[in-house]
Amino acid sequence: MVMKVSKLVGEHFKEAPADCTIESHSIMVRGGYIKGVGAGIYSLYPPTKRITRKIENILREEMDNIGGQEVLFPVVMPASLWKESGRYDSIGSELLRFTDRTGTDMVLGMTHEEASVQMCRVAAQTYTKYPYMIYQIQTKFRDEPRARGGLIRVREFTMKDAYSFHTSWEDLQEYYQVCYDAYMRIFRRCGLKDFIAVKSDSGMMGGSVSHEFMSLTDIGEDTLVICPECGYSSNMEAADCKVEPDNAFEEAPLELVETPDMKTIADVTKFLGRTPKSTCKAVVYQENATDKYIIAYLRGDLEVNETKLRNYLKTEIHPAAVITAESGIVEGFIGPVGGADCRVVFDKSLVPEKNLICGANKVNYHYTGFNLTRDVPDAEIADFAKSYEGAECPVCGKHSIVIKKGIEIGNIFQLGTKYTKSMGMEYIDKDGTTKNPIMGCYGIGVGRLAASVCQESHDDYGPIWPMSIAPWQVEVCNLRADDETVSSVADKLAKDLDAKGVEVLYDDRDVRPGVMFADADLYGIPVRAVVSPKTCERSAVEVSYRDKSARFDVSIDEAADKIKSIVEEMLAQYK
Amino acid sequence: MVMKVSKLVGEHFKEAPADCTIESHSIMVRGGYIKGVGAGIYSLYPPTKRITRKIENILREEMDNIGGQEVLFPVVMPASLWKESGRYDSIGSELLRFTDRTGTDMVLGMTHEEASVQMCRVAAQTYTKYPYMIYQIQTKFRDEPRARGGLIRVREFTMKDAYSFHTSWEDLQEYYQVCYDAYMRIFRRCGLKDFIAVKSDSGMMGGSVSHEFMSLTDIGEDTLVICPECGYSSNMEAADCKVEPDNAFEEAPLELVETPDMKTIADVTKFLGRTPKSTCKAVVYQENATDKYIIAYLRGDLEVNETKLRNYLKTEIHPAAVITAESGIVEGFIGPVGGADCRVVFDKSLVPEKNLICGANKVNYHYTGFNLTRDVPDAEIADFAKSYEGAECPVCGKHSIVIKKGIEIGNIFQLGTKYTKSMGMEYIDKDGTTKNPIMGCYGIGVGRLAASVCQESHDDYGPIWPMSIAPWQVEVCNLRADDETVSSVADKLAKDLDAKGVEVLYDDRDVRPGVMFADADLYGIPVRAVVSPKTCERSAVEVSYRDKSARFDVSIDEAADKIKSIVEEMLAQYK
Repeated sequence: MVMKVSKLVGEHFKEAPADCTIESHSIMVRGGYIKGVGAGIYSLYPPTKRITRKIENILREEMDNIGGQEVLFPVVMPASLWKESGRYDSIGSELLRFTDRTGTDMVLGMTHEEASVQMCRVAAQTYTKYPYMIYQIQTKFRDEPRARGGLIRVREFTMKDAYSFHTSWEDLQEYYQVCYDAYMRIFRRCGLKDFIAVKSDSGMMGGSVSHEFMSLTDIGEDTLVICPECGYSSNMEAADCKVEPDNAFEEAPLELVETPDMKTIADVTKFLGRTPKSTCKAVVYQENATDKYIIAYLRGDLEVNETKLRNYLKTEIHPAAVITAESGIVEGFIGPVGGADCRVVFDKSLVPEKNLICGANKVNYHYTGFNLTRDVPDAEIADFAKSYEGAECPVCGKHSIVIKKGIEIGNIFQLGTKYTKSMGMEYIDKDGTTKNPIMGCYGIGVGRLAASVCQESHDDYGPIWPMSIAPWQVEVCNLRADDETVSSVADKLAKDLDAKGVEVLYDDRDVRPGVMFADADLYGIPVRAVVSPKTCERSAVEVSYRDKSARFDVSIDEAADKIKSIVEEMLAQYK
Repeated sequence: MVMKVSKLVGEHFKEAPADCTIESHSIMVRGGYIKGVGAGIYSLYPPTKRITRKIENILREEMDNIGGQEVLFPVVMPASLWKESGRYDSIGSELLRFTDRTGTDMVLGMTHEEASVQMCRVAAQTYTKYPYMIYQIQTKFRDEPRARGGLIRVREFTMKDAYSFHTSWEDLQEYYQVCYDAYMRIFRRCGLKDFIAVKSDSGMMGGSVSHEFMSLTDIGEDTLVICPECGYSSNMEAADCKVEPDNAFEEAPLELVETPDMKTIADVTKFLGRTPKSTCKAVVYQENATDKYIIAYLRGDLEVNETKLRNYLKTEIHPAAVITAESGIVEGFIGPVGGADCRVVFDKSLVPEKNLICGANKVNYHYTGFNLTRDVPDAEIADFAKSYEGAECPVCGKHSIVIKKGIEIGNIFQLGTKYTKSMGMEYIDKDGTTKNPIMGCYGIGVGRLAASVCQESHDDYGPIWPMSIAPWQVEVCNLRADDETVSSVADKLAKDLDAKGVEVLYDDRDVRPGVMFADADLYGIPVRAVVSPKTCERSAVEVSYRDKSARFDVSIDEAADKIKSIVEEMLAQYK
């Protein structure tokens, strides 16, 4: 069916609302792609539905290709399932909980590890069934407090999530690599260009090894640590940080120095003629559950990697909101010698340094000469410094680390037996023993992927959709709907293309060329065919590409065939 | 990809659980099609997901074919949208309500009229955009108190719902017929045989004209009124009932007669030598909101159609649970002359009758000689009798009515302006005036349709899937996985069929033929190809059809081609 613009449901706006701070969000609102229904909740207009369906088909092909079996889990689940795994209690309010009419506790699925184990618990009781992978494409809900950026960070979203089950870690690792490769193909086939996989923190999913796939973009919320020399890459949250020792000073005794009103590292180092590298910085946190203070010390030029600190402490923390007088913590002058009575941890960056400046726990006083191993003999030492531009690569050892921003477009986890153990899923192995299967899980958000492609591939006028996921393949523009000759050529071209299996958006409206072209840019269809009195005069249709790489005439008679082969060539790039 | 039974996720059981009271439910549990997750909530195993995907593709084709534009609405919606339309208050607890982390009232979508208006409110402001239709295929949740029958009546389900918008009633009616025809094609293409459309009650949807599509089956929960003579058909809830007057008696005066301990119509009529037709029966209801009593009188041989009564009263009612002494209602002897002080309504079946028996509102006494128009001059007369087998057809007038049972597999509504008016959706018409668009809506439940096909098309051993929605097209049975010759023939056949684009389920397990065939019956694949030592001896593959209509040999060399053409022929029946 030829889709006529005159009937297409959607609204185009000249200006995007003020809350659209990133280009893809602005384009998708201005171009009639999405309609906000509530905070982080959108309806999808026809073009977006067509895009996401094409993405879903690519996902299906690639999942089926690696032996996946498509299933469907429910959106609404009894809380009992999440109590079995322990996540009902361990996950915060992003898991939406409610009771049904009978008073039963229910949740909205934000991920389906529990459901996948429940599905297979009885169905796979002998080793001969393994390995296998099941996947679904389904709506999910995550009660995200910071919904933003249109489809980039929403509360309700469509996700492809897959779960694999194995009888050995080796088998999981092998399949994990197969999925990794499939993910790289998926993103390439969807037309994404600049993306990488990075090592990631497993967070609430549990498990050990995990990777995130990142679309590299300045508007990304994730910070990535990349070594262009050897290919090492990691989410900042999970990145190792090899800090080069400064060793600028000889050992010296602790000495109390007056530092009047100097509460910042900048003030103190300037006053004492030192650099931040020669200080011991204090950062104060509070445990979420108890509000108890925790002080983290690290070298003054470094930042705390909160995820690593949290993982080390094995408790949820937040930067201290207020520091009470009773705590004994002297703000601006906090130091590790004779400080307040609370938990204290030191980053390993402090270990090799001598003669550092630190707070003296006394208003207007600092110490010089601080030496961690000497002055705090029983110090609790951990690794929680953030990596930084130019840092030493933890793999190849060069000082080559660069920091980039990215949007997470997919993730894969080696889960192990976290869920199969807690939920009592067992099978009988070859040797007759009973074991818990070893799991992997693999996710891609469909809408976010569409928005990420838009974010990467657009100009000032709208999106430049790759042929593989473009809502339509060709837009036919009838520049004079009131002219019989022009209209009959344009009508026929649209019809002929449709008959040849080409997806056509046909702008049949009686509007000025400027309006029609501006709208066409917002539709972002890769190939455009313009029919006007001028092109008809020269018995031609003017073909151009949305990425502005070409513009040429084809004869009216050959237009449908030529355009069809152009579409096929473009499509072939994404096979 | 050839799907091997050895890897297929799902569980087969010899016996269905005791709560499976209908065949399709029992088959779908025993055959590894569905897995209960909570009351009325299921996960779908791979075969069911494949079936429902094929149904969804048929739905898409037919919706696109009548100009539909696919969109996606959210599952979770802010309650404010439902407050706009007024349904937040008017719908009962089947609408699941909850609050999100910010305390905002939310609902789970059970239907999307509100969302469709919200989507189009700004997008369709001029008459040139009309008519148009949008549809989605999406998960819905209805907090159904009586979930039962597997996928027949669930709480969470996938639904195709469509919404059309028009500028005149004529245009709506025309498109309504187009949808009606598309629905008939859809059910036929999904392999359903015995189904009809019936006039229905519009219920909570609002609007005037509506139809339900019904799969005719004894296990149906809906009662249907059908005239085989003229084609009239209606859901009992909405069926007109033309009651033939009995007129068995001459007018007579009211007379009090003693009827000791005779509280039922059977007792009284036997005692007085009359039939139920010559009585005036009382049925007591209570208004849900106030518990106030309402007495409905009708001729003794008829039943109350509660939906019609409810629509007439314009209030929710339920059969009286208890009748209190203070009410003045004398149970067993209730009558319209000098009765209790409550609302009283009379069915029109009573109007022509004379000399009826009715209660006398006094223990152990009835009246004879009751005559509604004479004895209750200001009676409130309405039409709320149930139709019955052999009743007069309200269209052709023959006494031809038959009563059947059906499962509702789809519905279509002429909604009018109920939603566009309440939600302020307007467009500028040709003449410059502002109007509310006129809506239609059209729904089909995907899982229920799959289950209904299974219910209609099965034998004692399992489902007989129609080729159009069968999870796989061909099952290859390797009867001797331990035999090299047999396995090489079977492996090759499965591979060749797959290469030719035929969907293959391959039973590669080393199990006894009895087990393999029992499982094959449960998979219900339309075409089966058996490879055994015996078939190999005669250089053949044994092909048989799941519906037992044929069994024949094809030579090994030609097997793949022959089977492919059989599949294509079967598919062609559903085009």
